[in-house]
Amino acid sequence: MIKIGIIGATGYAGAECIRILSGHPGFDVSCVVSKTFEGQKISDVYPNLAGLCDLVCEALDYDAIIAKADCFITALPHAASQNAVHQLITAGKKVVDLSADYRYSSSSLYTDTYGLPHKYPELLEQAVYGIPELNRDIIKNAGLVANPGCYPTCAILGIAPLLVNDLIEFDSINISAVSGVSGAGRKATLSYSYCETDGDFAPYKITGHRHTTEIEEQLSILSRKTVIIGFTPHLAPFKRGMSATIYTHAKTTLSTDKLIDIYNVYYKDDVFIRIKEGGAIPSVKAVAGTNFADITPVYDERLKRIIVVSAIDNLGKGAASQAVQNLNLMYGYTETDGLLRAGLYI
Amino acid sequence: MIKIGIIGATGYAGAECIRILSGHPGFDVSCVVSKTFEGQKISDVYPNLAGLCDLVCEALDYDAIIAKADCFITALPHAASQNAVHQLITAGKKVVDLSADYRYSSSSLYTDTYGLPHKYPELLEQAVYGIPELNRDIIKNAGLVANPGCYPTCAILGIAPLLVNDLIEFDSINISAVSGVSGAGRKATLSYSYCETDGDFAPYKITGHRHTTEIEEQLSILSRKTVIIGFTPHLAPFKRGMSATIYTHAKTTLSTDKLIDIYNVYYKDDVFIRIKEGGAIPSVKAVAGTNFADITPVYDERLKRIIVVSAIDNLGKGAASQAVQNLNLMYGYTETDGLLRAGLYI
Amino acid sequence: MIKIGIIGATGYAGAECIRILSGHPGFDVSCVVSKTFEGQKISDVYPNLAGLCDLVCEALDYDAIIAKADCFITALPHAASQNAVHQLITAGKKVVDLSADYRYSSSSLYTDTYGLPHKYPELLEQAVYGIPELNRDIIKNAGLVANPGCYPTCAILGIAPLLVNDLIEFDSINISAVSGVSGAGRKATLSYSYCETDGDFAPYKITGHRHTTEIEEQLSILSRKTVIIGFTPHLAPFKRGMSATIYTHAKTTLSTDKLIDIYNVYYKDDVFIRIKEGGAIPSVKAVAGTNFADITPVYDERLKRIIVVSAIDNLGKGAASQAVQNLNLMYGYTETDGLLRAGLYI
Amino acid sequence: MIKIGIIGATGYAGAECIRILSGHPGFDVSCVVSKTFEGQKISDVYPNLAGLCDLVCEALDYDAIIAKADCFITALPHAASQNAVHQLITAGKKVVDLSADYRYSSSSLYTDTYGLPHKYPELLEQAVYGIPELNRDIIKNAGLVANPGCYPTCAILGIAPLLVNDLIEFDSINISAVSGVSGAGRKATLSYSYCETDGDFAPYKITGHRHTTEIEEQLSILSRKTVIIGFTPHLAPFKRGMSATIYTHAKTTLSTDKLIDIYNVYYKDDVFIRIKEGGAIPSVKAVAGTNFADITPVYDERLKRIIVVSAIDNLGKGAASQAVQNLNLMYGYTETDGLLRAGLYI
Repeated sequence: MIKIGIIGATGYAGAECIRILSGHPGFDVSCVVSKTFEGQKISDVYPNLAGLCDLVCEALDYDAIIAKADCFITALPHAASQNAVHQLITAGKKVVDLSADYRYSSSSLYTDTYGLPHKYPELLEQAVYGIPELNRDIIKNAGLVANPGCYPTCAILGIAPLLVNDLIEFDSINISAVSGVSGAGRKATLSYSYCETDGDFAPYKITGHRHTTEIEEQLSILSRKTVIIGFTPHLAPFKRGMSATIYTHAKTTLSTDKLIDIYNVYYKDDVFIRIKEGGAIPSVKAVAGTNFADITPVYDERLKRIIVVSAIDNLGKGAASQAVQNLNLMYGYTETDGLLRAGLYI
Repeated sequence: MIKIGIIGATGYAGAECIRILSGHPGFDVSCVVSKTFEGQKISDVYPNLAGLCDLVCEALDYDAIIAKADCFITALPHAASQNAVHQLITAGKKVVDLSADYRYSSSSLYTDTYGLPHKYPELLEQAVYGIPELNRDIIKNAGLVANPGCYPTCAILGIAPLLVNDLIEFDSINISAVSGVSGAGRKATLSYSYCETDGDFAPYKITGHRHTTEIEEQLSILSRKTVIIGFTPHLAPFKRGMSATIYTHAKTTLSTDKLIDIYNVYYKDDVFIRIKEGGAIPSVKAVAGTNFADITPVYDERLKRIIVVSAIDNLGKGAASQAVQNLNLMYGYTETDGLLRAGLYI
Repeated sequence: MIKIGIIGATGYAGAECIRILSGHPGFDVSCVVSKTFEGQKISDVYPNLAGLCDLVCEALDYDAIIAKADCFITALPHAASQNAVHQLITAGKKVVDLSADYRYSSSSLYTDTYGLPHKYPELLEQAVYGIPELNRDIIKNAGLVANPGCYPTCAILGIAPLLVNDLIEFDSINISAVSGVSGAGRKATLSYSYCETDGDFAPYKITGHRHTTEIEEQLSILSRKTVIIGFTPHLAPFKRGMSATIYTHAKTTLSTDKLIDIYNVYYKDDVFIRIKEGGAIPSVKAVAGTNFADITPVYDERLKRIIVVSAIDNLGKGAASQAVQNLNLMYGYTETDGLLRAGLYI
Repeated sequence: MIKIGIIGATGYAGAECIRILSGHPGFDVSCVVSKTFEGQKISDVYPNLAGLCDLVCEALDYDAIIAKADCFITALPHAASQNAVHQLITAGKKVVDLSADYRYSSSSLYTDTYGLPHKYPELLEQAVYGIPELNRDIIKNAGLVANPGCYPTCAILGIAPLLVNDLIEFDSINISAVSGVSGAGRKATLSYSYCETDGDFAPYKITGHRHTTEIEEQLSILSRKTVIIGFTPHLAPFKRGMSATIYTHAKTTLSTDKLIDIYNVYYKDDVFIRIKEGGAIPSVKAVAGTNFADITPVYDERLKRIIVVSAIDNLGKGAASQAVQNLNLMYGYTETDGLLRAGLYI
């Protein structure tokens, strides 16, 4: 059993890592770090874990924790991860980092987006962008995987087949996306309180959301052209899940059936990508609690557009379960180990 | 007091009309028609109405009901309204029709969209499209008002200032809209049951929703050009409310502040349109239960786009309260009578 | 128009008072006090109020505010209200206090329950317990009305007819009650965040909730005996509303029909009490947003029990609208002024 | 691998069985029966199952299905199960029946409760009541297990330690319980539609719910006395989960700590029972999606009562996962196989 330490264990993504790993045949959560809940059992903070993981949260003392695990998942806010990852990598540990700190290929784009210098540009170069469906082979040999953002995962998986097959105008991509409330993280904030959020719906950061540049960079790498996108996120009253409706202009006349074939071919080796057919539309509930991404393309004859719908669990394929999928690759396990479980649906 | 009859009284829009009219100073609900609940008190079907409207639902017997009211609101499915409206108009009654049957200027567009012939094209010509903010004067003299669809109301109010001021490319409008579940009507359908809907989110009718042509015709009338739009609706897990995020390409360089000025000027006489400023974003909860439309335009410098957010209550400004606003105009009352109430918010 | 000042205007109960009073024919909100949001428009904090009440929140400066209103609603936490009410009463103003500070007949019971001394026991004696259905006449002449707690309102209205008619064993009352999340107030608390609350259900303060003694004192006054009750509150995932299922042992053999008659007689002059008949069961949604209390008694033949179900809106009849009902009485208005509106239901 | 057939596969409990078994090391779902969805893939009806179980639903043709599985779970409505179970047992198959048809020890109690004769009283005698924590040993050898009702599971597990240890008055048990909406099953019913259910809360079947006699019989068997209970269920707006607050009168003076010790001893060998300590209160979300029952007793000094809170997932420990727990015992597997997974919590 490989021993995994979770830093930032009591945030939603950290706790979801523990939940998934508690049923994994090859990994064992050996150490959980939480500043806020130091000294408390993780299962007192998350009562669903009682009997499955009852470790006590400890402080972020590198000397103490480095001895306790072979590999770490860092689930810290951006900025805080820069140094944490550096310490762990320097100590010879493998790391999957859930923050944005190691997702960009250059420190300048990071700085432009997050308004911070990057202290470890050399580590940035080592980091591998962790979408297994796109980067499977390099993830296998990576020591540091930058786990993608939730919106980027959802959008990139939806758009990749169009770009790679040169089916759309490069400057026509407009992503209208919706996240459940867990995307805002676990914190005491008035605007995410039950009474404020339930029954409500609205966009936020209508232009300029930070995930825009992350999506653009990855799509540019994929297509070997400079891709500029429109991206507007919305908040909807559900806990988990994320849906992107992606509007693009087709280069040529197509059909929905033809598009579905193209998507099936593109993702033929990817168990966690389910292309919906026959009019079925990806919906948040079908993927909630899982590592699946449900995707379908639709051809709009009247306007010569391709509209792609992509749904993931923001805490799953958008964070924790994708981290475990990356860990499986990094440690030579079967990619689906511990992850082939159906979501609850109801 | 003007006596109002409600046909289709036990659907969500019909019942909402009763709710609003039960507090109106100039109208009195005198007759409620419901096939399904004939013989039952409306307040047994909708217990919120107990003590406020306890009328017994009656069958759709024109001879009986025509004597009971001065004016009718028809809240029937499309197709069924064609004949109902004809009977009532022929009997000399004023009508506000909530269906799609009288919303188009030509029977051919109606037939293309709804797949049905129109039996009363001459009535279609008399009907006035009932958005008071656009058609106030002609509504005042109308005998038949076609109350607009919810998505069209939400979208048209958001787009009108852009088209009238010639600020956007006419072929660039893409509407990504979201409705609460009440938009599907009151019926026993598995797919709208609590367990299927709660926690879920997805688009539906990704292309080809019937409201597309209704929006296009009204925007074409407004702009005196042929406007073709993209329109994709989504279903979100809340009961009431509707939000549209409207993506367009600007003709010239603008700013959000400038746009807000333009919107404020355009809607300066319209009490029910609230232009949100200072970064405030329209949200469903702020308008739920009311006749308000909250709107804000945002200029996207990077992509030279104008994004407009528009939020209404699909049962309110999108149906019942807009019907009452139309009735106020048709009967010479103050336009806001019975409608100037704050929504619950919580 | 009587001018009303609201102290604690940005809490849920305070804002609900503004919402209700914004449509009232005889009262005008002239002044809103909020420490946290001083200097901001109340309609920026509560966007549903935009265009209906756009007053700017001010600090709690007694000299400034006393001149601005004839009467005040104090919607402050307990303890804070003690002094606020004293200041306002001393300045000759009428007050409806929403806190627990003036609800008890003796300072000792207050101190036992809230762990605080009472600085103004002489005011405690003047204060009238504000359930109009029980204390209508003395409220009319009151200068200080202690607006009841939400659970006490819901429970007492359900139990009163049983005690007054001597139908149950006095020591047999067990109240199992459920509140929506707004009962916890408007605050940034992790445990009331959307992700923590949605989909969850549990009791809290299983014994010893503070409202226990408030209910006991009022029931004791009503029945002229010392009533001791069991009371367990629960939190359920909805925003507004409250339901109590009250279990009691009948003294004699009865029937549900007979009980309904007794309840109808007891509340024959009370517009806001709706006794549900014919198997209809009070539910939260039927009263949400209103001042109604829906109540039904059921006789359990097998166990010789009487079970009463009582539903109110915790922010309405349990707080703000009951405050307005009290104000109507205090100022000689019709008791239902501004309050006879149907709830949204959907 | 033991092959399992699911009859009634597209109901919520049936589909939950498939979800759980799809990750089980020793069972394989080999056959799914659904009248309504015959010919459709189960994963088209439940898209969460796509890629995990894509069997096609077949008709209830005993000749065809009997060859396909070693054992069957029957998830049919009561009455329909009588014959189905008889056919399967006669064909030599083991059966776990999720209906009420085989839960009673006598056909007369069944008939009194469900208003139907029992056609197979001899099978009723063979059937074992399937709460493993109480009947583990006889379940191991059973050919027919009657899987308990959800309310009975939740209530009996909460009360058993009190009765067995003779701590309470036998006639004092009053169960106030709350179920999520999935308890009503998967059907197109207006009263369980999203708009009717969301935001609402109310009791139903205030007296006389059918589970009353099931609970009474099992408690009577446990305590060897005739136990009569009060039981009132409520419906709350969440999908999964169930909570019972059980009010009883203590025979002697106790303490909460002492009670917790007693519960820990009673359930010391039961992995799926988690006794909450230190003030932690069982809540629905902590057990949703799992086979756990979270339970805590509280001693009410003032009234000399014991209040027990018990929470399960109505579809899990209250139906499908308890069925799998029973199957594990019937086939000699480790009792926790396939079931030791944390719930989602968020």
